[in-house]
Amino acid sequence: MRDVIEGIRPLHAEAMKAAKERQDSLVKPAGSLGRLEEISVQIAGITGNVLNRIDRKIHFVLGADNGVYEEGVAAAPQEFTRLLMGFYARGVMCGINVLCAQAGADLVIVDIGVKGELDYPNILSRKLMNGTGNFFSGRAMPRETAEKAIGVGIELAKYAHDNGYGIIGTGEVGMANTTTAAACIAAALGARGAEAEKLVGRGAGLTDEAFGRKRRVICDSLERLNPDPRDAVDILSKVGGLDIAGLCGLFIGAAYWRIPIVVDGVISIAAALLAYGMNPLCRDFMIPSHTSEEPAYRAAAERMGLEPILNLKMRLGEGTGCPIAMQVVDGALAVMGEMSTFAETALETDYQEGIHT
Amino acid sequence: MRDVIEGIRPLHAEAMKAAKERQDSLVKPAGSLGRLEEISVQIAGITGNVLNRIDRKIHFVLGADNGVYEEGVAAAPQEFTRLLMGFYARGVMCGINVLCAQAGADLVIVDIGVKGELDYPNILSRKLMNGTGNFFSGRAMPRETAEKAIGVGIELAKYAHDNGYGIIGTGEVGMANTTTAAACIAAALGARGAEAEKLVGRGAGLTDEAFGRKRRVICDSLERLNPDPRDAVDILSKVGGLDIAGLCGLFIGAAYWRIPIVVDGVISIAAALLAYGMNPLCRDFMIPSHTSEEPAYRAAAERMGLEPILNLKMRLGEGTGCPIAMQVVDGALAVMGEMSTFAETALETDYQEGIHT
Repeated sequence: MRDVIEGIRPLHAEAMKAAKERQDSLVKPAGSLGRLEEISVQIAGITGNVLNRIDRKIHFVLGADNGVYEEGVAAAPQEFTRLLMGFYARGVMCGINVLCAQAGADLVIVDIGVKGELDYPNILSRKLMNGTGNFFSGRAMPRETAEKAIGVGIELAKYAHDNGYGIIGTGEVGMANTTTAAACIAAALGARGAEAEKLVGRGAGLTDEAFGRKRRVICDSLERLNPDPRDAVDILSKVGGLDIAGLCGLFIGAAYWRIPIVVDGVISIAAALLAYGMNPLCRDFMIPSHTSEEPAYRAAAERMGLEPILNLKMRLGEGTGCPIAMQVVDGALAVMGEMSTFAETALETDYQEGIHT
Repeated sequence: MRDVIEGIRPLHAEAMKAAKERQDSLVKPAGSLGRLEEISVQIAGITGNVLNRIDRKIHFVLGADNGVYEEGVAAAPQEFTRLLMGFYARGVMCGINVLCAQAGADLVIVDIGVKGELDYPNILSRKLMNGTGNFFSGRAMPRETAEKAIGVGIELAKYAHDNGYGIIGTGEVGMANTTTAAACIAAALGARGAEAEKLVGRGAGLTDEAFGRKRRVICDSLERLNPDPRDAVDILSKVGGLDIAGLCGLFIGAAYWRIPIVVDGVISIAAALLAYGMNPLCRDFMIPSHTSEEPAYRAAAERMGLEPILNLKMRLGEGTGCPIAMQVVDGALAVMGEMSTFAETALETDYQEGIHT
């Protein structure tokens, strides 16, 4: 794991320079395609090539249960984690199944810590625990388990690399995982007390009472367990979830194997922030998808300087923002690869200076 | 024209109710797919059917020149309007060509008032003037010409309807058209003086001096011509452009023939706002694409209650946000059409109440 984390290399500056120059040579005012241009330049930095095309897309959904569920911080029955995993595997068309099909992305379902048996041939079993421990009364998992979960994510990234995937999506399912995500983000930002409390969102359908409980559980646990903001494994083992730990490894592995990786909502960005804490270079391989309404999302995005490209008010989870963002990425790469240059039009003017002014 | 404007019928309330019910029956917490759900319900209201699929997409780019260009309110040479029209027609790959191809949208280029000859077989010629008059010293066009231009847009919508297109994109090209757009939006909102000045944006690449000129030209002209906020034709004929008038007609026609129509940036939304002024029902057929940095865009979007779904910092024009938004719409319709229902999974629970809490 150490080798992978330390083996991440920066974006290729040369390729990005050449990519920027090519963007500025295309028949449009320089910079006028905004984030589409930036994404194409970022991906050039990732692959080292100016022109890129993504032929294969992969989206991972990591399922895990959380011991802190016991504290009444989630509205839905805990069995729903296992139930939904069964849905994905049985071909029930859930949001992520439909949107992956729509975007042409392959979907891989991983059991990294769901409570109970999950016997489906098309669920990749990497179960490390039958759900984590309750961090309000104890801690989430042993340190070694957090490391193993990160290792699972790194393995998934390697799988994507070995099979020629050009982009990775990061999804999850697990009751109470907005609680673990908010706790991880607060821990990584070194927030305690009122500052931590502000990061806790209502998730979906929580009553006022349950919302108050959720805030108390997170703040009290951070106080008691005192996770080290500079130690992602410490954070994960104290207040994390196995889905977040696995996704954290996926972000690290994607950076190591140089594959663009799409950030989804608050759970995905919690994992991204922990990966960023282990090696800030991870950030350069991330592409944010949709804005989340959860306050912890915004704090994490701000810390990493990530600005979401979609505003869809989605809060389903499963990484449902990722396949939509992947289509925008396709558009960005098409602009770079298929737009004509000024030279090709035999026009040498100052058109780049601006139209529509 | 009157018949079309007055012939617009509201969204089908029954179909929307049924669509909302179907959304709430799908295997996800109710409302958790946010704007994707809303768009699918809106389109049900447009077509009258709960399930919809868009097989054919069309994007129109209307080219026109603006007399107010003479006042030095644009950075690029005026000939660029004609030049770019030639590019689109000659198969040079501009931003809109690439993004339409990417989204599978057919592209139609219309000359509604470009200055000079445009002799290409694949440009639809509906030229009404060789560019409008300079509204800083005179007015943009006669009232009848504004009406004719609206008629051209209505004709284009009819073409889309007759040829089975399921969604329309609204693009434009024309030097100085952020000036006409800001003037139209200010006029429609009844803004004058400092209030109008705040609506003027820098467009692309404008110097401080030119920016000051642009503000003065708009504010002084509004003062002198005093367009009636309740009369879109008056506004168009005094401070409008032929591209904006044509797009205004396209929005009206789309509402009349009940086709979802995508709003792009500030020029497109100026046309949308004028159509809304003629019949507020037009708004219900609009789908906003990307946020524009132009202050007039925000004011118009706010007035109509439109919230953009993309945040891509694009300012190219040509309607380049539309094909990207069309792909999101495809995703929204796929969710409605392809997701499983709770009944299908033989599961009757309170799952809809929420996960990820």
